[in-house]
Amino acid sequence: MNSHRYCVIMCGGVGSRFWPFSRNDKPKQFLDFFGTGKSLLQLTVDRILPVVGPDNIILVTNRQYADIIRQQLPQVKESNILLEPARRNTAPCICWAAHHIQALDPEASIVTLPSDHLVLKEDAFRQAIEKGLDFVENGNRLLTLGINPTNPNTGYGYIQQGSPAQDYDGIRKVKSFTEKPDVEMAKMFLSSGEFFWNAGIFLWSAKSILDAFEKYSPDIAQLFDAPEPVYATDKEAEFIEDSFPLSPSISIDYAIMEKADNVYVETVDLGWSDLGTWSALYEASPKNADGNVTQNCKVLTSDCNGTMFAVNGDKIIVAAGLKDYIVADNGNALLICPRADEQKVRQVVNEIKATFGDRFV
Amino acid sequence: MNSHRYCVIMCGGVGSRFWPFSRNDKPKQFLDFFGTGKSLLQLTVDRILPVVGPDNIILVTNRQYADIIRQQLPQVKESNILLEPARRNTAPCICWAAHHIQALDPEASIVTLPSDHLVLKEDAFRQAIEKGLDFVENGNRLLTLGINPTNPNTGYGYIQQGSPAQDYDGIRKVKSFTEKPDVEMAKMFLSSGEFFWNAGIFLWSAKSILDAFEKYSPDIAQLFDAPEPVYATDKEAEFIEDSFPLSPSISIDYAIMEKADNVYVETVDLGWSDLGTWSALYEASPKNADGNVTQNCKVLTSDCNGTMFAVNGDKIIVAAGLKDYIVADNGNALLICPRADEQKVRQVVNEIKATFGDRFV
Repeated sequence: MNSHRYCVIMCGGVGSRFWPFSRNDKPKQFLDFFGTGKSLLQLTVDRILPVVGPDNIILVTNRQYADIIRQQLPQVKESNILLEPARRNTAPCICWAAHHIQALDPEASIVTLPSDHLVLKEDAFRQAIEKGLDFVENGNRLLTLGINPTNPNTGYGYIQQGSPAQDYDGIRKVKSFTEKPDVEMAKMFLSSGEFFWNAGIFLWSAKSILDAFEKYSPDIAQLFDAPEPVYATDKEAEFIEDSFPLSPSISIDYAIMEKADNVYVETVDLGWSDLGTWSALYEASPKNADGNVTQNCKVLTSDCNGTMFAVNGDKIIVAAGLKDYIVADNGNALLICPRADEQKVRQVVNEIKATFGDRFV
Repeated sequence: MNSHRYCVIMCGGVGSRFWPFSRNDKPKQFLDFFGTGKSLLQLTVDRILPVVGPDNIILVTNRQYADIIRQQLPQVKESNILLEPARRNTAPCICWAAHHIQALDPEASIVTLPSDHLVLKEDAFRQAIEKGLDFVENGNRLLTLGINPTNPNTGYGYIQQGSPAQDYDGIRKVKSFTEKPDVEMAKMFLSSGEFFWNAGIFLWSAKSILDAFEKYSPDIAQLFDAPEPVYATDKEAEFIEDSFPLSPSISIDYAIMEKADNVYVETVDLGWSDLGTWSALYEASPKNADGNVTQNCKVLTSDCNGTMFAVNGDKIIVAAGLKDYIVADNGNALLICPRADEQKVRQVVNEIKATFGDRFV
């Protein structure tokens, strides 16, 4: 195993679209969605361990999740858990992690992973990451994984590929990024064969990404430029406490990827889903003869189909007459809504918070 | 208050049509359905207390509910709780209670009440009971209350009235009893003006009902004819333990009322519902502007109407796209079904019991 290889796992998200399973104090990445006995975060760590040793795995999260991370990942050492003092999206998180890793190892290469996605093809994943790390270790290049799209999904960002990279099959320059398109555009993307889903998986060397911040997001770069060595020392926490909250809240896509001229995409087939919504989980889950997902829970149905049932705990659901619904029951909250309406879930959570305070969210 | 007047409250029912609220260990009559802070049983006792003192209230129940009755009705003395050793429907229950009361007071008159019905007009109820008791105290007559029907309900039994009783306005001979009719017949009943809903509320003297058992159900009468005085003594429990389980399981309607020739009906308007089903509870409950019942629980709805939401405890429901449903959540069980399908609930409960054992029923 190449000891210069590091993995940053971003696990500070709130996951409000998965309410009522995802809660403020235990968001999606910490949940055992598939009843395998492991949370999505634990599955993410297991998936990368053949490529990156446990001592080189860095977790970046909001400080309110420190305890749950220590509990779920006892193999990760305390100094590898970076606790953000505020929520500022992915760009500052990635910049901090790159500084931290560069201080540990100036020659480091880094794969950055979301903590709450589904990857069914673990071997393909491992091979893609190894090839991608090799690619970014041999040049000042930023690499993103592009997923072969299987349908005109309007919930994903798309990456358009350009000319091929030399000597690396399946890696090409990025021609454009497109945020969530409408369905007509998504259909055109799909039929063109040039567009891939943006999986939010990034590879680069520590040096390359820090150079990119200097060049394309100098405001963020400046915040994290310490006047003296602080990263990976006992001065790091105090420095971050002061500087991190000053960062704009911005994604790495906007801050760097859409601006940089050295961005590449490695196209892969991973059996991937971002599990961004109940419907995405429905699509990713095995269905019974009626097209219902009742995995991991006791459900008696009559005249139900296309419905996603999710129950936390030893509970029974008896349901009749539901077509294409989501039924999600967790503790003190129950959601019943048509799958087509699920984009409203996030706003309902806000409404609940406004009406009842924090105890149901 | 006339000290010869007694009330028998039957509270041994299972109420499986109200699953998952009604459970084996806590059926419907013990639940606070309306969020008033009192169970249906407690409301029943409160309703009769202006007519019958607490020492003259006899509770007949299955022995598994002894503790919950003592807890809910501390004002009822222990010797007034008759614990059935087996479930045998209403006829043997009424026969036993009549013997018990006759032993306490040979001149007793008795009103027998279900424990799980809704009565909105308490004054009309009290007046009807007082008139009815007066009627049965002045002759060997069996009296039942008939409710003015407001719709062609097919879930109730109907009583057809005949010629008027002398000197008692609103009391007439019974011409016929009809079990749950089909909707065409129910409509004819309603338009004829001769038919009334059978509320399961009966009035008689102890002597009259025991005479009726001798005459119309001698098999049951014989079981409860003790060779020596046992009722209201410390020998009663042992005698009942042996004899009660030998009784056929039969309702008082079949065993006596449909056969006897001295049966009368007192027609009343009580704001009554038997609360026999979720739909009956829906009908009896106040509705919001969308026709949903969300009483006593926190519900956020979008595009829902005609739906009954019932939640036990401090829980929130977020629901969208439900028309005319029942959503009932209680502990380890959740029911979601169209109101039109609710007659299936009882059979589903049996299925759950067969599949998972007792822990969800």
